[in-house]
Amino acid sequence: MHTVYELQQLIEKAIPNIEYPKHPKNLYEPLTYIMNLGGKRLRPALVLIATDMFNGDIMQAMPAALAIETFHNFTLIHDDIMDNAPLRRGKLTVHEKWGTNNAILSGDVMMVEANKQLAQVDSSILKDVLNTFNATAEGVCEGQQLDMEFETRDNVSIPEYIDMIRLKTAVLVGGAMKLGAIIARAKHEHAESIYSFGENLGIAFQLQDDILDVYGDPEKFGKQVGGDIKSNKKTFLLLSLQQRLSAEDHVVLEDLFINETDSKVESVTSLYDKYQIKALATAEMQRYLTKAFDALNQIDIPDSQKSQLTQLANELMNRES
Amino acid sequence: MHTVYELQQLIEKAIPNIEYPKHPKNLYEPLTYIMNLGGKRLRPALVLIATDMFNGDIMQAMPAALAIETFHNFTLIHDDIMDNAPLRRGKLTVHEKWGTNNAILSGDVMMVEANKQLAQVDSSILKDVLNTFNATAEGVCEGQQLDMEFETRDNVSIPEYIDMIRLKTAVLVGGAMKLGAIIARAKHEHAESIYSFGENLGIAFQLQDDILDVYGDPEKFGKQVGGDIKSNKKTFLLLSLQQRLSAEDHVVLEDLFINETDSKVESVTSLYDKYQIKALATAEMQRYLTKAFDALNQIDIPDSQKSQLTQLANELMNRES
Repeated sequence: MHTVYELQQLIEKAIPNIEYPKHPKNLYEPLTYIMNLGGKRLRPALVLIATDMFNGDIMQAMPAALAIETFHNFTLIHDDIMDNAPLRRGKLTVHEKWGTNNAILSGDVMMVEANKQLAQVDSSILKDVLNTFNATAEGVCEGQQLDMEFETRDNVSIPEYIDMIRLKTAVLVGGAMKLGAIIARAKHEHAESIYSFGENLGIAFQLQDDILDVYGDPEKFGKQVGGDIKSNKKTFLLLSLQQRLSAEDHVVLEDLFINETDSKVESVTSLYDKYQIKALATAEMQRYLTKAFDALNQIDIPDSQKSQLTQLANELMNRES
Repeated sequence: MHTVYELQQLIEKAIPNIEYPKHPKNLYEPLTYIMNLGGKRLRPALVLIATDMFNGDIMQAMPAALAIETFHNFTLIHDDIMDNAPLRRGKLTVHEKWGTNNAILSGDVMMVEANKQLAQVDSSILKDVLNTFNATAEGVCEGQQLDMEFETRDNVSIPEYIDMIRLKTAVLVGGAMKLGAIIARAKHEHAESIYSFGENLGIAFQLQDDILDVYGDPEKFGKQVGGDIKSNKKTFLLLSLQQRLSAEDHVVLEDLFINETDSKVESVTSLYDKYQIKALATAEMQRYLTKAFDALNQIDIPDSQKSQLTQLANELMNRES
């Protein structure tokens, strides 16, 4: 068994060695650019962790791991266009640096590059790998579509929100782990269980992100605390608050949305406190975490083989940033 | 052997039956919309023609044929964004109807749908099919990138132009036919020869398009004659003219570019006539057509099996629109 850190390092070393075609330069340079902006490489590491856990050969899983990371970065290029985002990890986004048309096309060819990497897996499991990958990719697009649509809708329900984060974030976590299991030739039911583990962990992770955005330690939280509040983002916290508000506090909240003030973050947070939204969100997060570990417990392999994954999940869920 | 018309009809019937997911509605509706705007369905028909020619089962080739048509339509959605085109086949483009962000994302998921269709081919040939498809998709993106870059470059050479149309148009023609050959389990060298036939035919086809834009019969040509001239598009004709112009006529042409007049199409056409550019372009087109048929002749199967393809190629090259 390899440690998570060792697997992340393997990915980190492999990424600069990916060879994209050289010409046309402006088409392919953005791929190298965004792939080398850094990041924790968690998604591709999860492919390798799952392969390792089922006693597979992690080097056989490397193309799929790189396909997952490539696909993820392709979605970042296109999401940044749609969100009109100027920066990504403190650097110019691809569309800011190369222009929107170029960014659309570099994203497109990046999805092709992900498929090329994926096509390197052993023929005997290729169809299964493709079906998993394509279902995942479809889900991620659906999640982004819902996320965009929610911005202009004012009747988003909590189940709809959970489904959106499941699609936008969690299916890729589940899909990455299922790919790793398939490559290790794990039993079909084990592959399904590890998918379920990943998907539920992904939902818990995103819920925790919603909580940290409000309650994170400003010293440790990577992003600006209160960013979601400032942008009126419909998170689990906001949707839960809106369901519980008294008529009077409803007016207060509406007023905070309309008349932007310096104390907006503080004022919305006071409302969250008043209605105990943090406890509610934490309970919801815990519920998905329990689902995740229930799925992991379904897998009848020695606990020692699950230790890296358990440790990673615990670290992720106790993070402060 | 099936006639080309029969195969086109098969495709035409299969397209409305493709089932895309239903939700989110705005993500998937554009796929059905653009796929049903019509068209000659030549690219998917070429997959089936190639399978039929090598005595394969055309129904086995249908998923790959639909993947090719789906991929082609995905490129139309994204190209129309990049070109800022309001109309496609006389109807609103996807980005005009659903907005640019939606169109980017619907295009993305459409590429995933193409990959899903492709993943349905028999496992024994799946890797070969994927490698061909991905190389084709990569080429098409490269071609679109070059086409965009050429708009703002003033030193485009003729070999660069030919390479651009090869990538943007011809590799998909070649790739479609190679897929059909692979699915029919044709010999490797036959699959390569049919690719070469398709690629060279695609280049000839595009050169003919350049010619028809200027010399087409306005009554029969589907698009407006002179459209390329009006938009100063660097076609084979324009690039050839620029190489041959006297210093004096160079000034005349530059002036036509800068001071738009009603007689621009007529005036540029006169220059084409003066320097016999039509004959030059026709000779170049003929050169690629000969290359195409040389490749077809390499395939040692009875001529009767090639008859549909030969007939189609002749029809295409003698078209007036």
